[in-house]
Amino acid sequence: MKNYKFLIEYDGSRYYGWQRLPEKNTIQGKLENVLTGMCGREVEVIGAGRTDGGVHAKGMVANAFLETERFPEEIRDYMNAYLPEDIAVREVREASPRFHARYNAIGKTYQYTCHVGKVKSVFDRKYCTRLEETPDLEPMLEAAKLLKGQHDFRNFCVNPRMKKSTVRTVDRIDITYKGDYIHFLFHGNGFLQNMVRIMVGTLLEVGCGRMTAEQVRTVLENPDRQKAGPTALAKGLCLVSVDYD
Amino acid sequence: MKNYKFLIEYDGSRYYGWQRLPEKNTIQGKLENVLTGMCGREVEVIGAGRTDGGVHAKGMVANAFLETERFPEEIRDYMNAYLPEDIAVREVREASPRFHARYNAIGKTYQYTCHVGKVKSVFDRKYCTRLEETPDLEPMLEAAKLLKGQHDFRNFCVNPRMKKSTVRTVDRIDITYKGDYIHFLFHGNGFLQNMVRIMVGTLLEVGCGRMTAEQVRTVLENPDRQKAGPTALAKGLCLVSVDYD
Repeated sequence: MKNYKFLIEYDGSRYYGWQRLPEKNTIQGKLENVLTGMCGREVEVIGAGRTDGGVHAKGMVANAFLETERFPEEIRDYMNAYLPEDIAVREVREASPRFHARYNAIGKTYQYTCHVGKVKSVFDRKYCTRLEETPDLEPMLEAAKLLKGQHDFRNFCVNPRMKKSTVRTVDRIDITYKGDYIHFLFHGNGFLQNMVRIMVGTLLEVGCGRMTAEQVRTVLENPDRQKAGPTALAKGLCLVSVDYD
Repeated sequence: MKNYKFLIEYDGSRYYGWQRLPEKNTIQGKLENVLTGMCGREVEVIGAGRTDGGVHAKGMVANAFLETERFPEEIRDYMNAYLPEDIAVREVREASPRFHARYNAIGKTYQYTCHVGKVKSVFDRKYCTRLEETPDLEPMLEAAKLLKGQHDFRNFCVNPRMKKSTVRTVDRIDITYKGDYIHFLFHGNGFLQNMVRIMVGTLLEVGCGRMTAEQVRTVLENPDRQKAGPTALAKGLCLVSVDYD
C-alpha cells in the first residue's frame, strides 16, 4: 500500500459538502467510490478540510492509501474518467507514508466572490453571490485589519463547542474590486466551520453601513456576548489552495 | 405601443434553443411569457437569429412592441426579476418602430471554445468542448483562409433546402490558443443552421490530420457531392454580438 496525494477541483453546487454521509451526495463519497472501484477494496480519502454544502474548490488536497499497480498519472486519468463532470483530479503524486492531508496542512487560502453589477451574471451565477448594493471598500478594509491576526474566532463559526480551541490566525485578507466583482481573499493557519462566510457577511455589513469596524472589534473581543454578521451564501466561496511544509 | 430593443445573455444548457415551441423550454418562450405577464397581453419577441439547443449567447439582440408605462431600465429590472437565473436582459432601449432584430441584422460574431487540458475543466464545463487531442494550428489557419469570403455554404448547414439562398460571407475567422483553451471567432453577414459548428468540426478535422485544407476547398466548391466535417457540440458555441447599421 502506498500513500498518494491528490489535488482536487470541484463545483460544490450539487453536493452536500465534502464529508461522506450515508445517503448523501458528497465529494468524499464520490472519490472513495471511484477509488474503491479501482482498487477492489474499501478506500478512505482524507481531505485537508471539510467544505460545506455548495462550497467549491480549485485546490482541495487529499490523501489515500492505495493498493495499485497504476502510475500516478494513470490513477488520475482513471479517476477523471469515472468521476462526475463537476469533480476533477488535477494531480496525483506518491507521498510519504506519514503524509496526512488534514494534520499536515499549515495554511489555507479561500476566495469569496460577490457580483455587484446592475444586471445579474449568467455564466458564473453558481460561483458568486449577487449583492443588491455596492459596499464601500474603506470601512471593509478597516474591519479586515481588525480581523487579521490571532484571535478567538468563536463568534465567527457554527458549533464552537465542537472544537477544542477556536483560536485561529488569519494573516491575510485582501479585498479587490474588479469590474462588476468584489473578491475577498483569506489566508490563515486554519478556519472554523463557516468562519470565512461569517467574516465575509460581517465585512459586507460594515461595507453597507449596517455595522461599524468598532463593533467588529467588540465582537472579536467579547466572544461570549456579541454577535458577528450573517453567514454569506456558500456558492460564493472557493477553497483555492492548501499549504504544506 | 412602442418598439424596444433588448440585449440578452443566456446559458443555453437547459434550453431547447431560442425559438418558441409548444411544450418546450425555449429562450424566446421564457422572454415572451415574462413580457406577456408584464403587459397583460400577448407579446411576440423577435430575435436576431435562432440559436440551437445548448448554444449560449452573450449578446443576442431582440425586439418587441410593448404597451407599457415603464421606463426601459424598469422593464429590464422587471424582466430580470421574473426570468430564470440563466437568462439575463443586459439592456433595454426604445427603438424606432421600423427596427426589426432579424431583418436589420447585418453581421454576427460567434465564439467557439475548446478545452485541450490534460484534465477536464470543472467550472466552465458547460461552455466549452473538451478535445482528446490538441489540433495543429497551422493547417487550421490554412483551411480557415479558404472558408473566408463569399461561398455557397450548403455543405456547412443542416436543412439547406429550407433556405432561398445558402450563400453567405464570412469575413473573419480567428483561431487563438490560450493556455488550455482554443478559441475560434467567426464574423460574417449571416450564418446558416449549424454552420459555425460544422465549420469548427471541419477545422478540427484538419487540425487533427484527418482532413486536408485541399479537401475543405473541394467541399466548398462542390456543394452537391462532398461532405464537410462533423458538427461540433452545441455547448462550445456562443453568440457574442449582432451588428446593426
